[in-house]
Parts: sequence; C-alpha cells; structure tokens
Amino acid sequence: MNIIDIIVKKKNKEELSKEEIEYAINGYLEGSIKDYQMSSLLMAIVLNGMNLEETYYLTKTMLESGDKCDLSEIEGFVIDKHSTGGVGDKTTLILGPILASMGLKMAKMSGRGLGHTGGTIDKLESIKGFKVELSRDEFIKEVNEIGMSVISQSGNIVPADKKLYQLRDVTGTTESIPLIASSIMSKKIASGSKNIIIDLKVGNGALMKTLDSARCLANYMVEIGKRFDRSVICVLTNMSEPLGKNIGNGLEVIESIDYLNGLQSRDLKELITTLVCTAMKVSKNMSEEEAIKLMNEKVSSGEALDKFRQFVEYQGGDIESIDISNKMLQINSSKEGFLKSINTLKLGEIVRNLGAGRISKDDNIDYGVGIVLNKKVGDLIMPGEELLKIYYNKKDIRIDELLSCFEVVEEPVARQDVIIEVIGG
Amino acid sequence: MNIIDIIVKKKNKEELSKEEIEYAINGYLEGSIKDYQMSSLLMAIVLNGMNLEETYYLTKTMLESGDKCDLSEIEGFVIDKHSTGGVGDKTTLILGPILASMGLKMAKMSGRGLGHTGGTIDKLESIKGFKVELSRDEFIKEVNEIGMSVISQSGNIVPADKKLYQLRDVTGTTESIPLIASSIMSKKIASGSKNIIIDLKVGNGALMKTLDSARCLANYMVEIGKRFDRSVICVLTNMSEPLGKNIGNGLEVIESIDYLNGLQSRDLKELITTLVCTAMKVSKNMSEEEAIKLMNEKVSSGEALDKFRQFVEYQGGDIESIDISNKMLQINSSKEGFLKSINTLKLGEIVRNLGAGRISKDDNIDYGVGIVLNKKVGDLIMPGEELLKIYYNKKDIRIDELLSCFEVVEEPVARQDVIIEVIGG
Repeated sequence: MNIIDIIVKKKNKEELSKEEIEYAINGYLEGSIKDYQMSSLLMAIVLNGMNLEETYYLTKTMLESGDKCDLSEIEGFVIDKHSTGGVGDKTTLILGPILASMGLKMAKMSGRGLGHTGGTIDKLESIKGFKVELSRDEFIKEVNEIGMSVISQSGNIVPADKKLYQLRDVTGTTESIPLIASSIMSKKIASGSKNIIIDLKVGNGALMKTLDSARCLANYMVEIGKRFDRSVICVLTNMSEPLGKNIGNGLEVIESIDYLNGLQSRDLKELITTLVCTAMKVSKNMSEEEAIKLMNEKVSSGEALDKFRQFVEYQGGDIESIDISNKMLQINSSKEGFLKSINTLKLGEIVRNLGAGRISKDDNIDYGVGIVLNKKVGDLIMPGEELLKIYYNKKDIRIDELLSCFEVVEEPVARQDVIIEVIGG
Repeated sequence: MNIIDIIVKKKNKEELSKEEIEYAINGYLEGSIKDYQMSSLLMAIVLNGMNLEETYYLTKTMLESGDKCDLSEIEGFVIDKHSTGGVGDKTTLILGPILASMGLKMAKMSGRGLGHTGGTIDKLESIKGFKVELSRDEFIKEVNEIGMSVISQSGNIVPADKKLYQLRDVTGTTESIPLIASSIMSKKIASGSKNIIIDLKVGNGALMKTLDSARCLANYMVEIGKRFDRSVICVLTNMSEPLGKNIGNGLEVIESIDYLNGLQSRDLKELITTLVCTAMKVSKNMSEEEAIKLMNEKVSSGEALDKFRQFVEYQGGDIESIDISNKMLQINSSKEGFLKSINTLKLGEIVRNLGAGRISKDDNIDYGVGIVLNKKVGDLIMPGEELLKIYYNKKDIRIDELLSCFEVVEEPVARQDVIIEVIGG
C-alpha cells in the first residue's frame, strides 16, 4: 500500500477501504506520511467526499489513535452537549447548571476558541482563578458531588484529530462533512459520552452554511453514533445572528449569570429550553411540559445559579472577579429601520481581532473585550439609538467595518427562530 | 492576501487573480508558503481546474521565477520538439539529426526520466563519455556548427517548476491540464524556443488517457504560446503501445541508430515523418511531398546518421560504446492469436523496475537493461514464437507480470495509427 495511490483513488472519487484509511491516518501520526501528502488527501476528501462507511472507519481509526475515558464511575444519567461552534455561544455555561439542578450529570471536555468562534474553556478562564485542568479523579468527583464539570481536553484523547485539525486549519480544508463528523464523533466517543446532544449551528456564522449540508452532517453523526452504541441527537439551530447579546469571553460569562438570574434573551431561552427538554426526554422520558415546569422552578428558585456558583468555586474560580475591560464605547445607529441581517462570521472575526480569540495558536487572549448587542434581527432601530457597546483594550477599532455587519432596511423583518429541526434520538 | 483564502477560493471553484497566483507561487518558492499548503492548493486545482487566463498567469509567474535563455545567437531556423512522455520514445534522437541534415537547428534542453516514462538525457548517458552539461557558449557553438545539441536543463531555468514538480510527484497531483500546460510552457519559453512542436501522447501509457483531455491540453498550450508570441503545434499521438520496438536507455539509442540506417519500425516512421513535415512547413513553408523526398534522401545518403555521429562526438560520447546488458532472456508466446492491446503504463513500470528508471530521485540508472518487442498491436503471434527479449542485470524478473501486459485474442485486430490529429500552427 502507498499513500500516493490512496490520494489518487480519492482524487478519482473512489471509495477508500478500511485498510487504506488506517494506513493513511496511522502513517500520518507516525510521521511516515508527510503533512504535504495528508493535506493533498484532505483536499481530495473535501472536494470528493466520503460515504458513511468511509467516515465510520475514519472515526474509528482516529478514536483508536489515543486514550479513551471511562465515565462509568459517575452515578446517574450523564449528558454531553456539544456545539459545532458559533458566535456568542455560551450555552454550556447555562445548560450545565440547569441540568445539574434538575438531577442530570454533565461531564464535559471542552475546547478552546478557533477561527471566528469562541471556546468554552477560554470563557471559563475569564473567571479569575478558574482551573480548566483537573485530574481524572477530580473530574469524576466533581461531577458526582455537584452534577457538572468542564475541563479542557486532556493530552492523549484522539491525538490524530489534534494533528489533523491543526493541518486543516492552515490548508483550507476545514469545511467537509466527513472530516467534521469524524472529528466530533471520535472525540465524543473517546471522552466516554453515551448520550450526546449536538447543537449543530447553521448559517452565515457557522461552519455549515446551508440547511442541506447541516442535515447531511447530522445524519452522518447519528449513524456513526449508532455503530458505537451511542445515542446522538442533533439539534439544528440558527447561527445567522449571534446567540444572545454578549460576545467575548468575560461578557458571555456575565450573560450566563444574568440568564440564571432570570434575565433571558428570547433566542437563548428558546435554545436552552429545547436542549433541556431533549435531555430530560432522553434521560427520564419526561414530557416537554413537565421539563419546562421543572426547569422554570430550578431557575426561579436560584438552584440553577447555585449550581453555577458551586461549579466555579469547585474549580477554583472567583465568580466576583470576571475580566471585563473598563474601556467601553457605545455605538448608536445613524439609520432608521429594521435590522435585516448580521454578518455573523465577520462580527465574530472583529471580536476575535479585538483580542477575544487567537489568530495563531500561541496568541494570548484578552478575556475582557467583546461586544454587547442591543439589537437583534427583526428589531426596530431609531436614529441615535444604541446599536451595541464595544469593550476594548486595543485602540484600533474600525467602526465602519463593524457597522457594515448590520443591514438595516425600511420594511419590517421577521425575527429569526433559533430551532430549525431535530435529527436523531 | 493570505494563502488559506486562496486555497478556499479554488476549493469553491472560483477563478484566481493574477496577484493571487503570483502570491502563491512566489511565496512557495521563498518558503513563506509551506509544502502542505501548496499541495492542498494543487489538489484543489487538479479537481476544480483553472481557466486559460489563470493558466496563463501561472505560466508567466513560473517563467519569471528564474533565468531565461536567449537563443538569438543561433543562425538559421531553430525548432524545439517536446514530448509529454511515453514508453520507448526515442524521437528526439532521430528527429534531431534528420532536421539538422535538412538545414534546421535543434537546440534542446531535455529532462531525465520520471515515473514510468524515460528521459532523453538518461538515454544519451547510456553512450560512454557523453556529456549532458555544457556551458551556454558551448551549447550555442555546437548548434551553430552541427545543427543540434541536447543538454540537461540548467540550474536556474524555472525553479518554481522544479519545486512544484517534485511536490506533485509525491502528492498525487500530476494529472492536471493547467498544471501540465504551465509546466511545459514555462520551460519551453524560458529556454528560448520560438517554434515549438509538442508530441502530445494520448493513451494508456501517457499522462493524458483520453482524447478529450489531450485536446484540451493542446488548446491551452497553443493559446498560451500565442500570448508569448511563440508558435506552438501539438501533434496528438498514440501512446497505447510503446513507440517502436526498444524500451530502455541504451536499447533506444541502438534503435535510433538503426532507424537512421534505414531499419525503421512502421509506427516510429509515421511519427518521424509527420514531425519532419510539420517542422519543414513551419520553417520553410515546404510541401509535405518535398519534405518527405528530402528526408528520404538525407537518410539514405547517410547524412542524417553522420549528424548523429557528429553530435555524439561533439558532446564527448563514444558511439561504439553503448551500454547494453549481456544478460538476455527471450520470451516466447504460449498463445496463438492477434495482439489486441499492451498495458503500456505497466510495461513502462516493469522496465523502470529492471533499473532503467528511478523510483526515488537519487536512484542510479542501469543503462543497459530494457525490453525489445518483437510484436506490436495487430500482429499475429504463433505459439512458441518470440514475443520479446529482456535485457537485465537483476535476477528477479516476474515473467507472469510481464506477460499479463499483453492481451492476445482470436479475431484479427487492426494496427494502431500513431498520428491522431494536429492542433495549432
């Protein structure tokens, strides 16, 4: 077997065998297959695809490249929620405490921000003292005692994904259904999750730009889950505008606390409610009505917020000390009309460039910067009315570029629903 | 500008601008763009193509990456003939002396063998003492005095092509019309050729497997030639069986001398005649009839062979000392019937594996090994009759594999024409 023949086979739109996929991935990890050969193969996969069978073998080979985590010592029903990445997506920080307060367990390994999307680990690190690295025993103990834990992905979970992801990031090969499906599923399975809810973002701020591609990705992940005896439910959600109002690490923690205090954006509430109902149905076969009733009780009683406080404290964080820049600029609209669209990808990049994300892998993050939106798609805006606030530290803010992300029109525009559809389960 | 955006653009089937192509190629040569990024871009080009405009800019950027050769000191009409590569292709060694004897000049920089195809430079080096490296002045002087010279491509002619070709060879990205067109044309233009005849091979032993793809490549090269004010004529020729009878470096030199002595394979004669007529038409507007008459005179008088002797002697070679292995094995047919097809690619690989070509770039060549075919497509074969002779040095000859290249059937089979069509001019 040789890698050039394998590349040429995929170039010619042929199906790769289990053995060929193993040869390519394992050879790449060992170093006998070079970066330049793997990137050529990756581009051939991006353009010519992989069927479900190939994607299953790719997932399996990646999964077996490293350690697997065993969550069997956790008592009760463990839920894992994963997001494919968006702008303003603080869902984990809200969903975790709510589910914990409702009696479920969330044991989550999370990632850092990449590209224009944020990462839960970076958000948590905006809380002074918060430790994202725990030993396995500490992790299990925290979940058993509090009901949740969020730690950064440990060293040797799916090393093949780590190496491939870094290469994809610099070779224009990120957008590919089989590559995304195998990357997500290998990590989820290796980290021990049995019940996986995937928040699959669709829209101009997501990896999946179209509903068709999102449905295809969802079907791949649900089917791969079945083969590994995991329950996978994909909730397709809108990412053509940021989720909620705050974008940026510390600001998103603040919005999460606000949410648990009852101050809830319409779109974030729609998403959290659906995810809670899905989790309660899977775990306890609870009806939607019951789940919503229980959720509302746990939030209004303060129990959900208490879970969040316990979780932060357990991991060494000081919830009173969240990094928010004291330099703020309010931007008002000069136009009158209805907000028709937000270029979410560009807005995400602007926030990243403020310092909230990394451009290259070793960049430091400025946890205190970001944007707070005062308007969402469908809202009426009057001239002189606040459009957003920027929290910044660097001085070079390009207001024009920022304003160009917002399209304002004369005719009324419908608000956007968050939930598009649910696949699997 | 950044390379990831350029890769993604081509991944999305968009046209690259002049500036983007320059950025990619020059950045790759400088080292700021990495192998793994270039191979990803190359695969996107292989699969999504490049239009003529992009291919022109690619050719131009590559051309400008190195030195250009000026042939203006050569007196008379200079013809350059280039082959896209085949098995048993000794055309240059025969055409050069014939054209020189007919008053034209052939100043040629040639390559070494790669993959399953041979290279003229390797063939010449099977002649004891033959020097393939001359200074520019020696090269020009030889052409002016004798009428021909063949040297290896000098150090800094189109360095971008050299770097890209090495990468394409190990990343499954060789088969691409824009990449082949720009590679050939940048080298031809940089080496100073004004009148270029391209022997464009089509068939199971060629880079271009189909007539459609060969026509497309021909049109690209003719059009690019026009933009650089060069005359390009593409002669599409059959490479679904080896050209002539001998395959292997020394053996091909022997067949060339035989040809100039009047011992001419039907297919080789058809090709040489067309190329001579094309060259005489372009240079002197000579009719086909006149050209053939003059060619036959120059061969039968021995003048063409004399040119070959002078050329070999001028470059230090001893024409009496051509490397041919003294170990020979005759293989007879066990079947009766007509030879229907020859797997030319596989046969080329077998000859390469005998030692006639390189598998990796630093391999030494065994000039004396190869195959002499006794039968060509359409020939009747009787059981026990000679199919071919192998000249070898290594002991591991797989006769079964060799015989599997030849398909023999009961019904008569038509012989294959060499000339398919002529494009350009």
